[in-house]
Amino acid sequence: MSGSLLPSIVEDYRVLARKRLPRQLFEFIDGGSFAEETVAANRTDFARLRLRQRVLRPVGEVDLSTTVLGERWSLPIGLGPVGLAGLTRRRGELQALRAAQSAGTQFCLSTVALCSLEEVAAQSRQPFWFQLYIMRDRGFARELIGRAKAAGCRALVLTVDLAVAGLRHRDVQTGMTGGLDWVGRARVAADYARRWAWLWDVGVQGRPHLFGNLLSAVPNARRLSDFYQFTRANWDPSVSWADIDWIRSEWGGPLVIKGILDAEDATQAVKAGAQALIVSNHGGRQLDGVGSTISSLPAVVQAVGSDAEVLLDGGVRNGIDVLRALALGAKACLVGRPWIYALAARGEQGVAGLLATYRRELEISLALAGLTRIADVDRNALVQGTTR
Amino acid sequence: MSGSLLPSIVEDYRVLARKRLPRQLFEFIDGGSFAEETVAANRTDFARLRLRQRVLRPVGEVDLSTTVLGERWSLPIGLGPVGLAGLTRRRGELQALRAAQSAGTQFCLSTVALCSLEEVAAQSRQPFWFQLYIMRDRGFARELIGRAKAAGCRALVLTVDLAVAGLRHRDVQTGMTGGLDWVGRARVAADYARRWAWLWDVGVQGRPHLFGNLLSAVPNARRLSDFYQFTRANWDPSVSWADIDWIRSEWGGPLVIKGILDAEDATQAVKAGAQALIVSNHGGRQLDGVGSTISSLPAVVQAVGSDAEVLLDGGVRNGIDVLRALALGAKACLVGRPWIYALAARGEQGVAGLLATYRRELEISLALAGLTRIADVDRNALVQGTTR
Amino acid sequence: MSGSLLPSIVEDYRVLARKRLPRQLFEFIDGGSFAEETVAANRTDFARLRLRQRVLRPVGEVDLSTTVLGERWSLPIGLGPVGLAGLTRRRGELQALRAAQSAGTQFCLSTVALCSLEEVAAQSRQPFWFQLYIMRDRGFARELIGRAKAAGCRALVLTVDLAVAGLRHRDVQTGMTGGLDWVGRARVAADYARRWAWLWDVGVQGRPHLFGNLLSAVPNARRLSDFYQFTRANWDPSVSWADIDWIRSEWGGPLVIKGILDAEDATQAVKAGAQALIVSNHGGRQLDGVGSTISSLPAVVQAVGSDAEVLLDGGVRNGIDVLRALALGAKACLVGRPWIYALAARGEQGVAGLLATYRRELEISLALAGLTRIADVDRNALVQGTTR
Amino acid sequence: MSGSLLPSIVEDYRVLARKRLPRQLFEFIDGGSFAEETVAANRTDFARLRLRQRVLRPVGEVDLSTTVLGERWSLPIGLGPVGLAGLTRRRGELQALRAAQSAGTQFCLSTVALCSLEEVAAQSRQPFWFQLYIMRDRGFARELIGRAKAAGCRALVLTVDLAVAGLRHRDVQTGMTGGLDWVGRARVAADYARRWAWLWDVGVQGRPHLFGNLLSAVPNARRLSDFYQFTRANWDPSVSWADIDWIRSEWGGPLVIKGILDAEDATQAVKAGAQALIVSNHGGRQLDGVGSTISSLPAVVQAVGSDAEVLLDGGVRNGIDVLRALALGAKACLVGRPWIYALAARGEQGVAGLLATYRRELEISLALAGLTRIADVDRNALVQGTTR
Repeated sequence: MSGSLLPSIVEDYRVLARKRLPRQLFEFIDGGSFAEETVAANRTDFARLRLRQRVLRPVGEVDLSTTVLGERWSLPIGLGPVGLAGLTRRRGELQALRAAQSAGTQFCLSTVALCSLEEVAAQSRQPFWFQLYIMRDRGFARELIGRAKAAGCRALVLTVDLAVAGLRHRDVQTGMTGGLDWVGRARVAADYARRWAWLWDVGVQGRPHLFGNLLSAVPNARRLSDFYQFTRANWDPSVSWADIDWIRSEWGGPLVIKGILDAEDATQAVKAGAQALIVSNHGGRQLDGVGSTISSLPAVVQAVGSDAEVLLDGGVRNGIDVLRALALGAKACLVGRPWIYALAARGEQGVAGLLATYRRELEISLALAGLTRIADVDRNALVQGTTR
Repeated sequence: MSGSLLPSIVEDYRVLARKRLPRQLFEFIDGGSFAEETVAANRTDFARLRLRQRVLRPVGEVDLSTTVLGERWSLPIGLGPVGLAGLTRRRGELQALRAAQSAGTQFCLSTVALCSLEEVAAQSRQPFWFQLYIMRDRGFARELIGRAKAAGCRALVLTVDLAVAGLRHRDVQTGMTGGLDWVGRARVAADYARRWAWLWDVGVQGRPHLFGNLLSAVPNARRLSDFYQFTRANWDPSVSWADIDWIRSEWGGPLVIKGILDAEDATQAVKAGAQALIVSNHGGRQLDGVGSTISSLPAVVQAVGSDAEVLLDGGVRNGIDVLRALALGAKACLVGRPWIYALAARGEQGVAGLLATYRRELEISLALAGLTRIADVDRNALVQGTTR
Repeated sequence: MSGSLLPSIVEDYRVLARKRLPRQLFEFIDGGSFAEETVAANRTDFARLRLRQRVLRPVGEVDLSTTVLGERWSLPIGLGPVGLAGLTRRRGELQALRAAQSAGTQFCLSTVALCSLEEVAAQSRQPFWFQLYIMRDRGFARELIGRAKAAGCRALVLTVDLAVAGLRHRDVQTGMTGGLDWVGRARVAADYARRWAWLWDVGVQGRPHLFGNLLSAVPNARRLSDFYQFTRANWDPSVSWADIDWIRSEWGGPLVIKGILDAEDATQAVKAGAQALIVSNHGGRQLDGVGSTISSLPAVVQAVGSDAEVLLDGGVRNGIDVLRALALGAKACLVGRPWIYALAARGEQGVAGLLATYRRELEISLALAGLTRIADVDRNALVQGTTR
Repeated sequence: MSGSLLPSIVEDYRVLARKRLPRQLFEFIDGGSFAEETVAANRTDFARLRLRQRVLRPVGEVDLSTTVLGERWSLPIGLGPVGLAGLTRRRGELQALRAAQSAGTQFCLSTVALCSLEEVAAQSRQPFWFQLYIMRDRGFARELIGRAKAAGCRALVLTVDLAVAGLRHRDVQTGMTGGLDWVGRARVAADYARRWAWLWDVGVQGRPHLFGNLLSAVPNARRLSDFYQFTRANWDPSVSWADIDWIRSEWGGPLVIKGILDAEDATQAVKAGAQALIVSNHGGRQLDGVGSTISSLPAVVQAVGSDAEVLLDGGVRNGIDVLRALALGAKACLVGRPWIYALAARGEQGVAGLLATYRRELEISLALAGLTRIADVDRNALVQGTTR
């Protein structure tokens, strides 16, 4: 057995994904924006929080189930929305959905998925979540909301931290996005060839329903090489709190706002009628240098009080991190890159394995913290003085 | 002479052990749980404590002897309980016992030793300590306590931080525990072969008294590849403070509780009748992300006051670390991995060398701190402001 | 595509510059003084400041324009003065000037440029800035000020942190400056040869107007190998605040003092009549171990109040850093090494690309911080408690 | 030119020394005790102190001269006592002495020098310092003091932090000291051969006056392989403050106590009649884990007040560090490893080069801090809040 050992199942899958995926795609998934300071902070700030080891408390019966937006989850970990998942595996979103539902938790389909709302709904055993970006063409958002209602979606997750796209230097260098001069293009040519073979392999090349949710509005969505620039051109930077009203009235169901990192924004989100917030910095892919998710969580929880549920998405790499987030007031965690790595590495089986590992890790760490139920986790689970 | 120089005798033996042992075994010993944050913290937190260099105080006569549970130790360092020690050397527990007794200190036999209580008792020059895990079958614990009494053990060390086993990713990756799919199994196949040859070599393969203390209760303990899963299945997560009572009454002798990291647990342990506590996080192998041993020590010492003796086990890599722990109130330190590395590297002679080096290091550092007796070590030995 | 991906456009150009330039020249540009602690601190201290991510604030119209010394800049980033720029590209200062002016921002010509004030003025579309060192021969400074006036320069930037030159160990080791014994000289001989070929290539060798601004005063300025020692010999360490008076009266226009890192010096600079200060430690090339630029900025801004504009030069590697500096009170940032790397890597096109990237990064980060105008950036853009 | 560039002249010489010296000797010089935490802290704690960059203060005339024990030094940097210097170069102590005296500063001869007091005195242009260890045989100390008086030494430096020798793992591994088993001895055999050739080369092998100062007392001092063990056997751990009295009366001249790191010891040293103290942890070669020299300096300076002069020895690697130590109250700095590296690398010329570089660095940094005289350096030279 060669190579060095890896500290988590996520890292395991990441290494496998790196081997399998075309470089552009892997780096697009793996990378962050600008100097990637926030990608790093999302991880390192978790490690500062120290848990209390408690002993001789009966922990034979550990129950990880929790309730999110009135819905029972078998564990406080769901699959957050990730764009382009379907590029890593044939019908990738469906594979992840099946793994999540088998594990008894929730899956959130991205606006920028390769499988359409309708395809996913047809295969889903139960209502799933749908994530929405608001583009310049509001009619397109209305249409998507209508399709989500028709698909019986359980919650609408509005992502608000992408007014404009963060600058991701890896994508420029790999040719994932434009901006390369001819020297750069020549350097990545070999990888381009590999990329097209890949697209064929995962069943994307030439299929009419590529980018299912966007297709009607986006004539050239089929051409992957334009995609990154395309999103930059179509997203609407002038969306404001005022837009939440019509979205809420169009939608009518539970509204989740994703991308809240600031206590003032959290307060406003609650006022705007969000039932839940997701503390997120878009996985460190948007404004670099902002607070990490875990360091931003306490102020958001305090601002929101009991008016909304708070979830956290970003930097969660094992069950210990989940326990830390719960201790600081999160209702549950979502993961993004981890399930894409797992999907790319081993498909549905990989995502199932990921969730099983998170479950086992959380069971173990809850028990070793002397607790048996999610509802019992609070700041008392942390060593005083380590929360800042 | 090639290679880089090593900063301690422990690291020296660790390198030798890595060369000698089958990979699965080495990584099982060397690793921790989850992301191994606590393994690292156990070490780095020692380095934050700065000692006072004192000069021109007569230190010609340095006496390292101390008293632990009324027993005289020639130095405040003992060999803590470590499972599977006998897998690293033929009759490994006996070799370590002899080294400890020759050095005038104590050895604690693990429940999960390869040499049985009776075999060890037959070879021991004096009463040794016995470490107990409480399994689902309480009758088994009763039987072990009875055997420990019959063996004349001096103290019973009840390990309480293993309600469930921490998840150790290295063991999954090396195949030490189950969970590998067929790809993984193929990858470790060559190492499996080496492992079985090894077992023959250390005299374990096919011997009837393998896992001496467990044999009666565990029909398949002979099969190493099942062992890790086996412990997970048999340990009892519902043990509670209430169990201490019957253990105490069965045992009747000095009771030590190992795995206390929290002041509240320490208070309860004293109430439950423990004569000594061992501050420990199981060497970073259980709940990852908890406080390091040395950072947790002061609160435990304060909670316990003079009601019990406090020992520390975890992260002690030289005599300087021992001095730091004593300065913060530990009565003595136990070491785990260090003696296994030494045993694997050079057998009894290695463990003797390890203890001799610790002794010499502590003698030197005590003298250079201007002190000559263990009883004189207190917080005054540390630079103010560095204890946090 | 080989090699690892780079976290910024600056690093990209740096790698290209390292490939293109003779080693002595690259290390001269890239290095700092003494142990280069300040070079590192200029970077790492930026990363401590955490920005606030703000959402759902309309950021469709972002305007980066600002006013510096009454002059409109299309973005708050200018090209600071850098010596020897012309050694990296044929007529390098002209190329950088054109890139800056095309981007709608300002360029500052160094005293130690290879293109003369007159050559630059002849090609410039608008008034540029001129940086002045005061040498022992005050007549020479007077002459330069006269030439700057004749060239229609917009502002005079007086660099005050080079009373004596910092010791730069890289230059000694590469042979850029003297001090090598014969062994050292032999070691760099091959590189010397390459250097002379290079000088021919960039059009410097043998041209009468080499070091245009210095030529009249410096007979041997043509000989590069003497240059570093030469500057040490001619700079005047006895310049004092009293000298500002005659400089101001000679010049008559807007006076900028560059190299202020201390609040007391800032107060004095304002009293001496400076309209703007540049917080700078000469890129970590002078007194090593001083405060970083970003950590020194707040005290200077506070000392100066509204009496002068404060710019920052040192450690700015992307638009995020610019936003951080603006949040702490800087009116704009200047960059040094970044544009030299870009110039060396790709000439005028490189500098243009650098400025375009900075612009895009600042636009994006401003929008993601929920802001649309430079004037709206203040401390409120930062997470409280991270500014120290 | 290959290899990476080095950040200081000390590192330059260190690399050269590593190439030239037998491994045992280099590691003996380069290493520290135990885990070498203090060796590292001596360096890193300097970097925490930030200097103030001051501008436009006339610094044309910089005077580095100072007075130590009433003696004029041309710069506040002297050569501290280092044992075995003569093993690195033929008559090494003499070479260093000449370099120090040519530079107008002081040299301190070690008890454990290869050149005797008498040989050094014969070649010295002026009184030098002599460092004394007190061994079990007090008569030997008396004899040495007598010889030092006869040699006209200017000050007696009593080293007090070596009651017992710190454990230096590098020396065990390289075979510099005993403790190797036959496997280890075989590994270093080739190096032993090289070492003996080396001894011949530097003129030590077979010379009657090897270890000049120890010879009379130490019959087997000629055999290097016994030396390290020998010192451990002969040093006296029972020396106490009471011994200072007779030393002082034997000596009669200025008494310097070296190895003070603690304010309480400093107070006692002054009471015992020391005219100067040297803050030192023996270069991190004795009690590992103690405070660094620079972090320990302020409390010692405060305890001593104006009753004695305080010098610092340990971690000083360039003129910036000297300035920092002066700012915190040191009268001057001594260096140890730096001059041995320089001596090993280039002999007398190397030590001269080292001192010239330190001088130039201090001149430059003093000027850039806006100061011109050593007496003007105080805490005001540091950025507030960085001294802890």
